[in-house]
Amino acid sequence: MKLAELKAEILQKKSFLCVGLDIDLDKVPVRFKNSPTALVDFSKEIIDATAPYAVAYKPNIAFFETYGVEGMAALKEVIDYLNAHYPKHFTIADAKRGDIGNTSTRYAKAYFDTLGFDSITVAPYMGKDSVEPFLAFEEKYTILLALTSNPGAVDFQRIEANGTPVYQSVLKISQDWEGSERLMYVVGATRAEALQEIRATVPDAFLLVPGVGAQGGSLSEVVHNGLNSDVGLLVNSSRGIIYASQKEDFAEAAANAAKALQEEMAVLLQEKNMI
Amino acid sequence: MKLAELKAEILQKKSFLCVGLDIDLDKVPVRFKNSPTALVDFSKEIIDATAPYAVAYKPNIAFFETYGVEGMAALKEVIDYLNAHYPKHFTIADAKRGDIGNTSTRYAKAYFDTLGFDSITVAPYMGKDSVEPFLAFEEKYTILLALTSNPGAVDFQRIEANGTPVYQSVLKISQDWEGSERLMYVVGATRAEALQEIRATVPDAFLLVPGVGAQGGSLSEVVHNGLNSDVGLLVNSSRGIIYASQKEDFAEAAANAAKALQEEMAVLLQEKNMI
Repeated sequence: MKLAELKAEILQKKSFLCVGLDIDLDKVPVRFKNSPTALVDFSKEIIDATAPYAVAYKPNIAFFETYGVEGMAALKEVIDYLNAHYPKHFTIADAKRGDIGNTSTRYAKAYFDTLGFDSITVAPYMGKDSVEPFLAFEEKYTILLALTSNPGAVDFQRIEANGTPVYQSVLKISQDWEGSERLMYVVGATRAEALQEIRATVPDAFLLVPGVGAQGGSLSEVVHNGLNSDVGLLVNSSRGIIYASQKEDFAEAAANAAKALQEEMAVLLQEKNMI
Repeated sequence: MKLAELKAEILQKKSFLCVGLDIDLDKVPVRFKNSPTALVDFSKEIIDATAPYAVAYKPNIAFFETYGVEGMAALKEVIDYLNAHYPKHFTIADAKRGDIGNTSTRYAKAYFDTLGFDSITVAPYMGKDSVEPFLAFEEKYTILLALTSNPGAVDFQRIEANGTPVYQSVLKISQDWEGSERLMYVVGATRAEALQEIRATVPDAFLLVPGVGAQGGSLSEVVHNGLNSDVGLLVNSSRGIIYASQKEDFAEAAANAAKALQEEMAVLLQEKNMI
């Protein structure tokens, strides 16, 4: 997918909502329990219900991989379904991979070619030659972890060298890598005060912002501090949508939760004269 | 597996060799090409040939994952084969995973329970709550990336804050985490000069040292700077063993390459009065 297509979709739908598919089979309605196809069936119903309000889907790979071969088969079915029925939706493999060069190429092929995702989340710890192999793929995007929203973000991401935290070095240094026009960044919304400074460092990049909703970030703060002329934001909500109800009305509840976020986004985009 | 069992195996075999299964189907002998079971068949022959000289096997997950569902089925066959035929060999899923708490638990279950590995490599970028879920598994080990052997290690791992590089902070801080007695560390051998200092920071931990052989580290330097009273070292070789020959004699060549490393290890262990 081209970035221009993503931007057009955002403006047309008045939404920069990404729905995170972190599917915990302990939290799905009873009829899915003990079904071997629960991961796929539940995902499809969530996708169908929320597609009008979302521009992106982010399956969390761990929640598939934990079931081994069957889990990976389910992941393949979910991404195939997305690509067949919702080709305009941007797809993110939330995989947080990263390894030395030839190994990263294998991960990139797995997610971009074999599975057919538009993008993948990648951990920066191993540096340039661990990330550039992902960036070599045209019209595919690498979403690098910069500042995450979990408590452990303080351990290493916020270590400061001469006043510059490590996550700022990740942003700055990665901008010089080959193919950096295909970089996006994960930026935790619970640190919205840092968003302004992050936006100054990477003015043109899309930011994937988790942590709105269940993790407690404010959508309005994210927009005020993170918007750029392309919108430049994808805001993720997982639990707040997919478990809006754990009963039989889960799909309707998910649609309502997604719609509420989309409407809030529409108001904010209007305020910012984007639509 | 208990660490005491790993140590006993090392002393009995006079070897701390780990064989890396980074199986590139472009580099295997002709008869494997185009075979759907090549990953499994080639792995089994390498394992059988090298088992007398090695104490650990480290499948590189990317090289399986790149083939999607079939690749994951092949990985399952390889780990099942190892556990059935070589239960005393320590198994490492070289996966470099890491995510927020409940997601890391899923990855841990995938590799420790569903697949049955003894250990997994994990990236530290997201901090404490991304690693502790792996450490909660008894008799399972988490091998945290500290200092890697690739060029990109300079980008973030070697950033210094008040004279302390980030990789040293990873070592120090992680030692305080719950379950840290089940932590091991990846330490690139091409930085053997840093090994002494690393060993001082984590005196008791096992170090997984890649980069001996194809990546150019010196085994003797690793032993002189990294050995502890438990031996405390696993030295990995991948390409130098599995592609010692790309012809039909590949298994014999792999055995010879592994045997040569084991013999070098035996001499070094004797010099250090470990055996």
